[in-house]
Amino acid sequence: MKRIRLIVAYDGTGYCGWQVQPNGITVEEVINRGLSRLLGEQIRIIGASRTDSGVHALGNVAVFDTNTRIPPKRISYALNQYLPEDIVIVRSEEVPADWHPRYCSSVKTYEYHIFNAGVPDPTRRRNTAFVSYPLQVEDMRRGAEFLKGTHDFASFCNIKTSVEDTVRTIYDLEILVQGLPGGGDWEKGREITIRIRGNGFLYNMVRIIAGTLLRVGRGYYTPEQVKEILEAKSRQAAGVTAPPQGLLLVGIEYRDAACL
Amino acid sequence: MKRIRLIVAYDGTGYCGWQVQPNGITVEEVINRGLSRLLGEQIRIIGASRTDSGVHALGNVAVFDTNTRIPPKRISYALNQYLPEDIVIVRSEEVPADWHPRYCSSVKTYEYHIFNAGVPDPTRRRNTAFVSYPLQVEDMRRGAEFLKGTHDFASFCNIKTSVEDTVRTIYDLEILVQGLPGGGDWEKGREITIRIRGNGFLYNMVRIIAGTLLRVGRGYYTPEQVKEILEAKSRQAAGVTAPPQGLLLVGIEYRDAACL
Repeated sequence: MKRIRLIVAYDGTGYCGWQVQPNGITVEEVINRGLSRLLGEQIRIIGASRTDSGVHALGNVAVFDTNTRIPPKRISYALNQYLPEDIVIVRSEEVPADWHPRYCSSVKTYEYHIFNAGVPDPTRRRNTAFVSYPLQVEDMRRGAEFLKGTHDFASFCNIKTSVEDTVRTIYDLEILVQGLPGGGDWEKGREITIRIRGNGFLYNMVRIIAGTLLRVGRGYYTPEQVKEILEAKSRQAAGVTAPPQGLLLVGIEYRDAACL
Repeated sequence: MKRIRLIVAYDGTGYCGWQVQPNGITVEEVINRGLSRLLGEQIRIIGASRTDSGVHALGNVAVFDTNTRIPPKRISYALNQYLPEDIVIVRSEEVPADWHPRYCSSVKTYEYHIFNAGVPDPTRRRNTAFVSYPLQVEDMRRGAEFLKGTHDFASFCNIKTSVEDTVRTIYDLEILVQGLPGGGDWEKGREITIRIRGNGFLYNMVRIIAGTLLRVGRGYYTPEQVKEILEAKSRQAAGVTAPPQGLLLVGIEYRDAACL
């Protein structure tokens, strides 16, 4: 028996999120089905991050156990033949039998992509949140500063969760601005990326941070209010949850030697 | 009677191209239908560029005549309510009654987007051509130099066309390289953009140029062979037509004072 780790990329548009559920097709379910067909065994993967409906990933992580003789590094190629084009296995490799994608300490990187322009760009609608109000990026950056470090992020956690410890650490939170094909004027718009690295994220945390920083960018909140929102430790205090299609799980790094 | 010009953006994935045709739904048809409903008149737009199935646009141009009392600049907002989310009217404005999007001298800008990485990125599959071979960008740039200027581009024209004059002028042809979310290493890939500006393009010309430069990037052709291909004036000489989803019509500038 071998334990195999998969690095998984997907366009989440067509899926009801990662985790198997009764209401619709999920990424986990499609991979389970592909693996079971490929290997002739009943496979159930364990994922690191249970992304929401419509959220994308370049580097989610999953594991499963198998008796296959296919060399571990070849499984990704073979499995991709059994998957639709909106799910791609980036890499596969053997890990120790007790390696678990959620019990090992890790650093996750997410990006929240905003298309900020006078009119929407239909070619970007699946991967960005569209905001037609010209955002004050410098204010967003000042507001973001208050979120860096170790804090109780209770204000940035969906209340539909049972997690008790809402303390997390954000190592980096940067806001990047990019022009678009054709130049950088306002009509053509710009893409604003909130890039965030942390040791773990609460349910909807990145999307609530994005929704809160969007309000700072629009002038609803001052940058200093982000500090007050954090201190309030109440979901009521923060901005709305930004829409799912802007969110991208970029990758997960495992840091402990025992977990590499 | 007023003549209205529209700037049109679309995600071409779900369409059989721009031009109305019997085999499937087209961008032109959907806009005609939306306009006819909005204005209560039978409208048939005239487009500047009849993009192929699967090709995208940020700035295609179309005109139509109407008796509506809706202010010209407001038509874009109103019409967007009648269109699906993969077609967006960026701008609308009145033009002289004899203004025609194809009879006025113009400069068109296209981009051909390539995702160059070890494995495909599912979130980019609709807007890029995937190439897993590490492309030699400097060779592509050297090959591209031969295409700049005024030439007979017969080698870069789909033979299914009746056009007689195959001389065109390319003002700029640059090849841009961008890292991707998460950094620029090979596993995460890079996006290579062939950006081209010219006074007109033959049927499939940009895609055949892209296909030819891709062969240079892979080492099938030397950069100098691009000059020979151009001089051969035969479609047989050039590379394959690169796939449609990589192509984006960025915009069209009209230059003659009479055509502004």
